Amino acid sequence: MKKTFIIGVMGGGIAQPVDERNAYHLGSLIALEGWVLLNGGRNSGIMEASAKGAFENGGLTVGILPDDHDNRKSSYVSIPIITGMGSARNCINVLSSYVVVACPGGAGTLSEIALALKYGKKVILLDFNPGTGFDNYRKTGQLVFVKTPEEVIDTIKLLLF
Amino acid sequence: MKKTFIIGVMGGGIAQPVDERNAYHLGSLIALEGWVLLNGGRNSGIMEASAKGAFENGGLTVGILPDDHDNRKSSYVSIPIITGMGSARNCINVLSSYVVVACPGGAGTLSEIALALKYGKKVILLDFNPGTGFDNYRKTGQLVFVKTPEEVIDTIKLLLF
Amino acid sequence: MKKTFIIGVMGGGIAQPVDERNAYHLGSLIALEGWVLLNGGRNSGIMEASAKGAFENGGLTVGILPDDHDNRKSSYVSIPIITGMGSARNCINVLSSYVVVACPGGAGTLSEIALALKYGKKVILLDFNPGTGFDNYRKTGQLVFVKTPEEVIDTIKLLLF
Amino acid sequence: MKKTFIIGVMGGGIAQPVDERNAYHLGSLIALEGWVLLNGGRNSGIMEASAKGAFENGGLTVGILPDDHDNRKSSYVSIPIITGMGSARNCINVLSSYVVVACPGGAGTLSEIALALKYGKKVILLDFNPGTGFDNYRKTGQLVFVKTPEEVIDTIKLLLF
Repeated sequence: MKKTFIIGVMGGGIAQPVDERNAYHLGSLIALEGWVLLNGGRNSGIMEASAKGAFENGGLTVGILPDDHDNRKSSYVSIPIITGMGSARNCINVLSSYVVVACPGGAGTLSEIALALKYGKKVILLDFNPGTGFDNYRKTGQLVFVKTPEEVIDTIKLLLF
Repeated sequence: MKKTFIIGVMGGGIAQPVDERNAYHLGSLIALEGWVLLNGGRNSGIMEASAKGAFENGGLTVGILPDDHDNRKSSYVSIPIITGMGSARNCINVLSSYVVVACPGGAGTLSEIALALKYGKKVILLDFNPGTGFDNYRKTGQLVFVKTPEEVIDTIKLLLF
Repeated sequence: MKKTFIIGVMGGGIAQPVDERNAYHLGSLIALEGWVLLNGGRNSGIMEASAKGAFENGGLTVGILPDDHDNRKSSYVSIPIITGMGSARNCINVLSSYVVVACPGGAGTLSEIALALKYGKKVILLDFNPGTGFDNYRKTGQLVFVKTPEEVIDTIKLLLF
Repeated sequence: MKKTFIIGVMGGGIAQPVDERNAYHLGSLIALEGWVLLNGGRNSGIMEASAKGAFENGGLTVGILPDDHDNRKSSYVSIPIITGMGSARNCINVLSSYVVVACPGGAGTLSEIALALKYGKKVILLDFNPGTGFDNYRKTGQLVFVKTPEEVIDTIKLLLF
């Protein structure tokens, strides 16, 4: 059986247009590689944009929702997972992802970067600087910084093969 | 966009051969309907059998694992969700399912039936009697009892259409 | 240091007066033994009654709330734990309890009995019959049935000493 | 009834001696104020030190354990809450705390700061700099920086009264 590669894409529920464009483009590239995109599932910001990019390019999209309902689900999420656990679902996001990509965001995104590092996952920052508090993880290489969606894909391939 | 229907299939991690055959057959019928099968994700009992039935018939299978790793994942699960939350993941199983089907099992399965009812989900019992403690829910019709995988599918169709 | 004994008291958020009186009396006896009472934390049914019984008799009361706020907290809970996880908090209720006592309730209470059994905890049923589905656990002695709060205390003492 | 004030104290499971001394001293001051100390419950680092400080000064200590057992529980925790949810328990830590104090730590502590901010809690940093990624929250005053345990107490009192 072919192994599924699940790539987590995190980032703000509210986001700048440039970051949403990057997230859309990243989603499309993930789909074109045949990987599964996983995110926080909601219909706004980086979640909506990355799911749309993957979905419109034939990709499978998994959304791990914080709510106990799907009223705020992105319509580009093909597999909604309804947790009813609020931000505790952030742990599921990172544990379920082979690699975590972090786009710009606020406290929620910072928590996902931190939880991913805590759980030993590689984290790729896409044009996002979470600040000096994470410098130690950049030194070890667990956390890497790139500027473009294409570089995210290249970095994931380095890890995969 | 076509709506995904996620059908949860619960049941024991240890199961009788007859129940595993039923679970396999149910998984295959779910796949043939084009629905997604969701279960607890492990490589044993009803989980393994139902995932295998769906997977071998072209279906998409989602496994919500209790562990913080995938060492015990069924190889027939195409989308593993790693929760690291033990039996608290049972809530996610039922919340994420449009309908919950319960095959024979022990305390874990009883907890999933109870949680599904608590969250207002319909529960279909496949040749399994969880006992008189659930009689009130059978009276209201939230809990229904059937004997065969085919009847499970018929019952779901009644609810869907 | 003296070990704390935490006794979980489960039961319906809506309850009959006779069951609330039993829960109040049980709470008071737990407090008089110097044990800590743990329950689901809300201001209704068995939760309110058991917390009140313990609190008014000098006991410490811990409430594990399903909500992400304390608006529905019982005022007799001295230590509110706010989980924001809905019924996934039922796992915490039973894992944190040395013994679980189940008073009459609905699907939520049935889920707590099942989860407690799954996690290997002893469960004492106080004038509550969860039905024939749990008979196997009564045969092994993991689940015991008693009629009065005093018998609950006697049973816990048997286990403790 | 007197309201319980629960103060969360976060920080590394591995910590420098100077930070453990600060955590111990902070725990003792929290106890002397009559507040409840809540932390992650384990027998190491800031958790052990802060619980010890509170416990040895007559305070009540609540430990929210990530494990599904209490083998690694600090013996200075009077109320252990066993979640079995790994780092998802970090959400419970911050939701249950009136104010969150963060002592020096790694990714786990950074996740708790971020989750606390996400949930709208005030966060007091005790001689810990989580980096420039949190600057926006310092500007709004949701995140404050102090140098000594005494200043933590003064800051909490400002918020309480």
